[in-house]
Amino acid sequence: MKIGFIGLGIMGRPMAKNLLKAGHELVVFDFNKEAVADLVSNGAASAETGKDLASQCGVVITMLPNSPHVRAAVLGGNGVAEGAKPGTVVIDMSSIDPTESRAIGAELEKLGIDMLDAPVSGGEPKAIDGTLSVMVGGKKELFDKYYDMLMVMAGSVVYVGELGAGNVAKLANQIVVAVNIAAVSEALTFAKKAGTDPELVYQAIRGGLAGSTVMDAKAPMMLNRNFKPGFRIELHIKDLNNALNAAHNVSSPVPLTGQLMEIMQGLKADGFDKEDHSSIVKYYEKIANTTVEPQK
Amino acid sequence: MKIGFIGLGIMGRPMAKNLLKAGHELVVFDFNKEAVADLVSNGAASAETGKDLASQCGVVITMLPNSPHVRAAVLGGNGVAEGAKPGTVVIDMSSIDPTESRAIGAELEKLGIDMLDAPVSGGEPKAIDGTLSVMVGGKKELFDKYYDMLMVMAGSVVYVGELGAGNVAKLANQIVVAVNIAAVSEALTFAKKAGTDPELVYQAIRGGLAGSTVMDAKAPMMLNRNFKPGFRIELHIKDLNNALNAAHNVSSPVPLTGQLMEIMQGLKADGFDKEDHSSIVKYYEKIANTTVEPQK
Repeated sequence: MKIGFIGLGIMGRPMAKNLLKAGHELVVFDFNKEAVADLVSNGAASAETGKDLASQCGVVITMLPNSPHVRAAVLGGNGVAEGAKPGTVVIDMSSIDPTESRAIGAELEKLGIDMLDAPVSGGEPKAIDGTLSVMVGGKKELFDKYYDMLMVMAGSVVYVGELGAGNVAKLANQIVVAVNIAAVSEALTFAKKAGTDPELVYQAIRGGLAGSTVMDAKAPMMLNRNFKPGFRIELHIKDLNNALNAAHNVSSPVPLTGQLMEIMQGLKADGFDKEDHSSIVKYYEKIANTTVEPQK
Repeated sequence: MKIGFIGLGIMGRPMAKNLLKAGHELVVFDFNKEAVADLVSNGAASAETGKDLASQCGVVITMLPNSPHVRAAVLGGNGVAEGAKPGTVVIDMSSIDPTESRAIGAELEKLGIDMLDAPVSGGEPKAIDGTLSVMVGGKKELFDKYYDMLMVMAGSVVYVGELGAGNVAKLANQIVVAVNIAAVSEALTFAKKAGTDPELVYQAIRGGLAGSTVMDAKAPMMLNRNFKPGFRIELHIKDLNNALNAAHNVSSPVPLTGQLMEIMQGLKADGFDKEDHSSIVKYYEKIANTTVEPQK
């Protein structure tokens, strides 16, 4: 069975290559001709449109920047829905608003087309290594059917629930990550202003209840002034925007997420939106007129 | 050399007992006669006042609820400063405002008395087991001198810097813990309202960048509706009050800490202040009119 792959960006391109390496037959589509040519030289076929691609494939993976791109690629003119036969399965691996995952899935259902939402976390290096974490929402039997295929691109593939649940989990993840980075930033900036060495404070608290994956990944970046992404502020803004929309749609209060959005808008105003999200600390540093650099 | 020990509460009593077990000669003082009698039956001597105690001891440990208690016990009438000879060392193991640690230390310095601040984290079970984490501020040579004695009560004793640095680290710890609990609460409440099973979302994200010691310690408590302390909201309110005071004293912005204080005040209004701080989730649940209980 041929796999269609739409969206050959920083993440999609290595993911598609891993499917090829594993022996899958691939048909790809992207507006970026160079990316398409790269995949074709690796053994993929190409299609002129999403409609053309979907007419040849039993399953179509989309890996696109955000909700509107997915909606356009799947439901828009010359899109997947126009070419797909009933029984086709769309697996959207983009990180989008779960409200939109469900809305798009409902439109596809009318055409007899199934959908999984399967956003990933892990970034470009894990996309290349095939060690992404995939969170999947949709029918359990479809999850089971495509588990092995998804595992080609992943270190873990976890079933979370109905369609949209994958993106709910992804947004829950992004909420916690953003807030945890701010917590570390707030604590280390305070430590510096209070006359201590933030490096020693970090070492003193990292082994206890305050310890986190974020702390061990991001505190050293803050202390060593390394803000190379990693995961860019501008992408985290996109995710928090989806989180706020999704939370507001279900009347769930997300005051800390709202605050982090405003902090990130401040960082964008200062031109830090292409930096790693560890630069959240710069928001604190600017107000406190200091940096968390260790004492000499 | 005799050790004076002032403050035989939930934490202080087992800490003092561990010093006795290790063979140290102890003189204790507390307003609670039963606690004093308990220590005396374990081999300690008792004193009538802090002054009386300090006159007999080369080092005086204080383990008291908050800054005013430490100030009164050390600098107040019949307190440690009135009885202590020059060269005595006060080791304050209470969790207090570091601004006060430094102020009290400055008063003692005029009398030729040294001071370390050495707050602990870990709670009653670790006080009993002698596996507390101790964060120490003050002169490095005093830290070195009393390291072995402190290790009798601890699993780790870490030097953080000048006097007050121990409490700065402790407050940094409490800031991160409170904010991380709120992050997990916000994410899981959103997950539930968005129609997913919070248990599955927790399992999906705990292994990635969102993972934390707080998440693995507190998410199961929230999901299983177990809010038995652990660490009570009312004590975390005390710590955040010290954190806000200390941060304001050095003009360091702590917006998330401020928000957590208000969340905890809401929980106190609802009578949850004797519960574990994992009940932060109840603030979200009340507004969202749900609970994060797993789907059946």
